[in-house]
Amino acid sequence: MTESIRIASSVYAANDAFARQNRLLFAGKKLVALNMISSPGSGKTSVLERMAARYGSALAVITGDIQTTFDADRLKAAGAAAVQIETGGSCHLSAAMVHKALTRMDLDNKKLLVIENVGNLVCPAAFDLGENKKIAVLSVAEGDEKVAKYPALFARAAAVIVNKTDLLPYVNFSVDRVREDCLKLNREIRMFPLSCTTGEGFEVWMDYCAGLTN
Amino acid sequence: MTESIRIASSVYAANDAFARQNRLLFAGKKLVALNMISSPGSGKTSVLERMAARYGSALAVITGDIQTTFDADRLKAAGAAAVQIETGGSCHLSAAMVHKALTRMDLDNKKLLVIENVGNLVCPAAFDLGENKKIAVLSVAEGDEKVAKYPALFARAAAVIVNKTDLLPYVNFSVDRVREDCLKLNREIRMFPLSCTTGEGFEVWMDYCAGLTN
Repeated sequence: MTESIRIASSVYAANDAFARQNRLLFAGKKLVALNMISSPGSGKTSVLERMAARYGSALAVITGDIQTTFDADRLKAAGAAAVQIETGGSCHLSAAMVHKALTRMDLDNKKLLVIENVGNLVCPAAFDLGENKKIAVLSVAEGDEKVAKYPALFARAAAVIVNKTDLLPYVNFSVDRVREDCLKLNREIRMFPLSCTTGEGFEVWMDYCAGLTN
Repeated sequence: MTESIRIASSVYAANDAFARQNRLLFAGKKLVALNMISSPGSGKTSVLERMAARYGSALAVITGDIQTTFDADRLKAAGAAAVQIETGGSCHLSAAMVHKALTRMDLDNKKLLVIENVGNLVCPAAFDLGENKKIAVLSVAEGDEKVAKYPALFARAAAVIVNKTDLLPYVNFSVDRVREDCLKLNREIRMFPLSCTTGEGFEVWMDYCAGLTN
């Protein structure tokens, strides 16, 4: 085992101990927790704003960014119970960061918890936060080869939101190619093409969320 | 000094030794090297395709991806001399990876070398590859708050390409806000709004590249 692999193993072991604690907490509350992962600018916060308009304060969000509290501010304004983690440089949320944020939240009377990860299609996929499901978000403006280029996330995600479908007339993007590439990695993956601008496809995503249980 | 800081320092020291070697090689060849960094899907490869149409094989590109050789294939088809690095999981290029790729390239008779980093707005900013300048690319589809959220790259970049300006009529994005946020971090930064689809603004970027010397 090389030194870098030993270091990585120890980082993951420490992370997984906190992830187990988070998972037990969510199970005790019968609360479904989603870990939402994407590139910067794919529209995670816009999806959550629309969800907050429906769930109100029954939607809890932990939102991670390197810097700024923009996202939590937007989600509180939309009615959700939101807590911001500023990672101060870290390119992903760790289970320990989420564990600490959970101490600042009232999880009673919540229907759903979404952890909005740092905008990064790579590193967050490797860290279990104790969530029930990973949700990938991909905007049609990013290009349809992203599943093949960044397979780790899509192999582990339960669902993919293909966002900004209102931009499809103006960009080269095949939803079918994304679906095919996802299914090659992961036969169980669910696809949700939608637009937060027009609302197209959003109800199908909301129905999926309503059917989740822990 | 905590253990994580000690590990990080040793990683950066090892990286910087290779970065120095790369920098000496570029200086010896009087070759300008750019390190192009952005989120996935901001359009780095499209910018390079348009540059290749002008430079032909006088443009050398080292392109980094977790997986696939799509980008190098596209750039060779466009006429550039391109070498792909598949990082096999790593979220950024290291100077050692670039050093190894350089042994596979003929750098004589080149006017410009662009290192197209892994699509990631966070981690690549921390690794010196020996380049002369870091170039950030931001697509207007990503949102105009990205400079404030991911300041490390924009504080270190010599220039920012604001790409996909053809999509401005369909998205909420203020080029002025991005310019102001960049200038707060970095008074010397240059801005290049452009579209690879329509060609708008591209000549200004090409003029900037033509004026660079090493």
